[in-house]
Amino acid sequence: MSERKQFRDLAEPAELHAAIDALGIDPGTQSVPLIEADGRVAAERIDAGIDVPGFDRSTKDGYAVQAADTFDASEGDPFVADLLGVVEAGDKPKTDVESGGVVSVATGAPVPPGADAVIPVERTTRLQSGAEPRIEIRTAVAPGDNIMHSGDDVAAGDRAIGPGTVLTTRDVGLLAAIGVEEVPVVERPTVGIVSTGNELVRPGEPLDDARGQIYDLNTYALAAAVRAAGGEPEVVPHIADDYDRMHETLESVGERCDLVLSSGSTSASDADVLYRVVEDHGSLDLHGVAVKPGRPTIVGEIADTAYIGLPGNPVSALSIFRTFVAPAIREAAGRPPESAPTLEGEMVAPKRYTEGRTYLLPVAVIEDESGSVLVYPVDKGSGAITSLTEADGVVEMSPETELLERGQSVTVDLFSGDTRPPSVLGIGESDPLLSRLLDRIDGPRYLSHGSREGRRRFRDGIPDFALLAPGDAEAVDGEVLGTFDREWGLIVPSGNPANVSELADLLGAESFYNLPTVSGLRSALDEALADLAAERDVSEAELADRIPGYDRTVTGVRSPARRVAQGTATVGLGLRFAASELDVDFVPLGTQTLTVVAAPDRVEKPGVRELQTVLETDLAGVIDSTPGYAP
Amino acid sequence: MSERKQFRDLAEPAELHAAIDALGIDPGTQSVPLIEADGRVAAERIDAGIDVPGFDRSTKDGYAVQAADTFDASEGDPFVADLLGVVEAGDKPKTDVESGGVVSVATGAPVPPGADAVIPVERTTRLQSGAEPRIEIRTAVAPGDNIMHSGDDVAAGDRAIGPGTVLTTRDVGLLAAIGVEEVPVVERPTVGIVSTGNELVRPGEPLDDARGQIYDLNTYALAAAVRAAGGEPEVVPHIADDYDRMHETLESVGERCDLVLSSGSTSASDADVLYRVVEDHGSLDLHGVAVKPGRPTIVGEIADTAYIGLPGNPVSALSIFRTFVAPAIREAAGRPPESAPTLEGEMVAPKRYTEGRTYLLPVAVIEDESGSVLVYPVDKGSGAITSLTEADGVVEMSPETELLERGQSVTVDLFSGDTRPPSVLGIGESDPLLSRLLDRIDGPRYLSHGSREGRRRFRDGIPDFALLAPGDAEAVDGEVLGTFDREWGLIVPSGNPANVSELADLLGAESFYNLPTVSGLRSALDEALADLAAERDVSEAELADRIPGYDRTVTGVRSPARRVAQGTATVGLGLRFAASELDVDFVPLGTQTLTVVAAPDRVEKPGVRELQTVLETDLAGVIDSTPGYAP
Repeated sequence: MSERKQFRDLAEPAELHAAIDALGIDPGTQSVPLIEADGRVAAERIDAGIDVPGFDRSTKDGYAVQAADTFDASEGDPFVADLLGVVEAGDKPKTDVESGGVVSVATGAPVPPGADAVIPVERTTRLQSGAEPRIEIRTAVAPGDNIMHSGDDVAAGDRAIGPGTVLTTRDVGLLAAIGVEEVPVVERPTVGIVSTGNELVRPGEPLDDARGQIYDLNTYALAAAVRAAGGEPEVVPHIADDYDRMHETLESVGERCDLVLSSGSTSASDADVLYRVVEDHGSLDLHGVAVKPGRPTIVGEIADTAYIGLPGNPVSALSIFRTFVAPAIREAAGRPPESAPTLEGEMVAPKRYTEGRTYLLPVAVIEDESGSVLVYPVDKGSGAITSLTEADGVVEMSPETELLERGQSVTVDLFSGDTRPPSVLGIGESDPLLSRLLDRIDGPRYLSHGSREGRRRFRDGIPDFALLAPGDAEAVDGEVLGTFDREWGLIVPSGNPANVSELADLLGAESFYNLPTVSGLRSALDEALADLAAERDVSEAELADRIPGYDRTVTGVRSPARRVAQGTATVGLGLRFAASELDVDFVPLGTQTLTVVAAPDRVEKPGVRELQTVLETDLAGVIDSTPGYAP
Repeated sequence: MSERKQFRDLAEPAELHAAIDALGIDPGTQSVPLIEADGRVAAERIDAGIDVPGFDRSTKDGYAVQAADTFDASEGDPFVADLLGVVEAGDKPKTDVESGGVVSVATGAPVPPGADAVIPVERTTRLQSGAEPRIEIRTAVAPGDNIMHSGDDVAAGDRAIGPGTVLTTRDVGLLAAIGVEEVPVVERPTVGIVSTGNELVRPGEPLDDARGQIYDLNTYALAAAVRAAGGEPEVVPHIADDYDRMHETLESVGERCDLVLSSGSTSASDADVLYRVVEDHGSLDLHGVAVKPGRPTIVGEIADTAYIGLPGNPVSALSIFRTFVAPAIREAAGRPPESAPTLEGEMVAPKRYTEGRTYLLPVAVIEDESGSVLVYPVDKGSGAITSLTEADGVVEMSPETELLERGQSVTVDLFSGDTRPPSVLGIGESDPLLSRLLDRIDGPRYLSHGSREGRRRFRDGIPDFALLAPGDAEAVDGEVLGTFDREWGLIVPSGNPANVSELADLLGAESFYNLPTVSGLRSALDEALADLAAERDVSEAELADRIPGYDRTVTGVRSPARRVAQGTATVGLGLRFAASELDVDFVPLGTQTLTVVAAPDRVEKPGVRELQTVLETDLAGVIDSTPGYAP
């Protein structure tokens, strides 16, 4: 085992931008049929080759006339003309218009020679008294009235589309109008995506937890991100940390694509060979950047093609992609820089960071009752995909900023221009019934971080509402929107082979799984254990010590039950609901009342009102269809 | 010829919305591979089926340890442990951790049984003195440090994606992380697009101007608009105004699609048969709406499928689509209502409208020096595609609003969230040299409406700059950014068969084409003619009368030259540049100086400064490569 390498001379963010710019990603241009051209970027300027319209065109249903004939015409003293002919749109006029005569013209029809104006049909009456029809004209028109002259709309030679235009519906319409059927556009840069790591498994295939396998998410998320930036992803099956295999894959992808984008294997630990492959067979321009997250980033070339190596940690990979790679792909695709959507807001919880690097702090936003934006950090730690999915954007903390204070104004760089604060934000106990209720609300966000965390965050002023267990519910100053009861107890395998029937049976149980202390359900178990200890006149700790696995916790409210269902635990803490869902047996220990508490200064928010309505009108029905719940 | 029908009982906008809602367009759901799921709409809620991670995972490169061993460790007094083994990411741990020992773990590797914390490698030193390597630990850790426990990120049973979520990069990442490979999504509604009209020709094919043919732009623009709204267009070749053909086409498209969208043939003139087809073979729910533009709109059903008939006029069709149809397609596609992008601004020119209907007034926007938004109407009249391409959005004038005053605050509904005011707006003389210069600026807009119109609009305070001919240039109060000269004269066929050599040769010319009086080039010709009249001691009008076609004008600065090149005119007013471009002969009559004038209160706008830079640095070079120009 060789000595581990340490990174030195981390590049500053500006250097990373410069190194990626210097790669000069250039996909070239291509010609596409007009029907597929919307959203593409015009590669060159396009001039009109024809006049639009190409002829003098009636803009009304009516009669083509010599304007001079009508100068004295009025409602009281109409001018009566002979009807000389009819022209529909798409017809060639057969008759010229002479003084004293008119030709019927439809909207869009060519105005016949001799006419210099069109009378709208509404200002005329058709007289059928004689052998030939005659037209009574009740208004005067001036030369040019109701005619669009040849070239009036677009004149031949006019510039129709500038180079670099992102073609909209309207541009496509204009190009069609001037008869363009093939459009020169900038090609979408093809980006080969290579995820590396022995631990990766393709979604859909089974995971071996004992080997520490995880699903390959970078390939899928990066493909989506490349597409959003205007590139065309080319996905390669993920590869193991093997030098020869990586070399072969990177070279072949580099020969086909405009950019090779890998993730993983970029750090300097023993097994990370990617940077050596690039060093040996291409060129390594930059290795390591002073940004958190995302330090072990690589920039270089392979097979004479631009190469960027992202960290394997999905949060790091996606952060670096968004901040540094996406702008380069956009530029190569000919797209204007993203109109960096931002929101101004106020930190509602403080954040300290003292490592002296630029920190792209993931944050989420929520509106207060007046619509002002409140910002809170979402930093769940290294590699948690939920620190991206629960976040709305980042606040950039410069190396000099060690603390963002509560109340401090910050600018949030949103992940997307479509990002809206959630309609309503809840934090608290994980509960399947609440989850079903929230499906009835548009755009809610609920962080099931446990009752105790809900209480803490509620006191900080972050969520609009919290779902709290007894003890926590009384400890906060809020408005109660509703309550419901859930049955909890011990989850045991189907048939209850160990004959568990009460809490005391946990003592000496073979393999128990508990929930963390932040959970309201865990509090209920702790209390029951305290009662049992009092009954037996021993300390609670002593009893807990006698339950194998009492301190072995899994996070989700269903997780212990799932372990029982999978056969990796013999008993677990859980809800009757989970037992019924997973088809295992349930030993009831009690009933717990959960309370939905709204922040007093948010009760008038539309999302909170919507939740209140759902609780008032739908709660009873949802409880009826959810096993283990009662009003 | 039957009596023309007049529309009665036009529907109000709200009724049109209701009729389209009542169609109940519903494309159903489908399953798509995750790699193609970004941007799609989740059809149902998706819960996590597994814990993420599925095992206790090291979040650092380091050593798995029993935390209790390290409680007294410090820089000065390190704890030295035996190295018992190594676990890389994707490895199954082979050795348990016991007190006094550590196992090397990589980031992402499973923490071996027995360990409850990980020491970061940076806080350790590897000692190789004895036979077996030992690890010096210089910091204390607490249980759980640098470990992400099973389910900490996502717990099995947690709601991952709510129903109706538009899947972003981050959602795709989360779905990959929980192993989802197929995603249930809302299908894109298929929209069959049928353009009708005898006058339509497919772009790329030749036009017969004499028959009043135009290119079919609605098919292309509507396909793009359908895609932008989340639908899938199915394009049918445009059809003529023939009852049986329309019936057959609409029925077969209706059988295949979720919505049939036609354009054209909806008005009540003799040749418009579409509404009769729908009345006879489907159901007609609504015909005619009190909105300008877009009155002759149809809503109904054909082949038991939703049907909407748009007007043939592209501006009307696209306006009605945007305001009434796009929201319905978005809803059917499961997308949230478009976050209606708007801009607040101030009318910089007044607009009167008194027809008592709702008017969707096309407008464009420009920023003043301080970044405030100014709004001006772009109403070029019925059917002009340029009233859409030169517009940025619409201002809705209610039937009661007869006048928008200059300075009045208005809300602009933008055509797109990406719409930005142009970097710089110019109005004035059409000129090929200026056009080349503007290619060097990002995002300019230039309306070549003629020098006189430029002068008028400049005085109204609309453009940032104007390009003006002599007479107009002196009449405005602006800052001169630059000037250049262009050579003008008469365009004659190659070889100059009629031996035209001077202005006097125009008298009695066979077929002359002129430019409109708004053009600066026309002013130059009028002046030369006045000089000739003075020389001959006759009136200018008398001379003009002797030139056949002196009042026959075509709009574009190249249009007369094009007529000569096409053989439809024997002589035309034009620039040496156009003659050289079109390879015809040129009879010089003079040189005209054009002036680029900036509005005094806009000179500090970045776009104006950019134009100034281009004029200072690039003008001479562009003049050199453009025939017929001089500094």
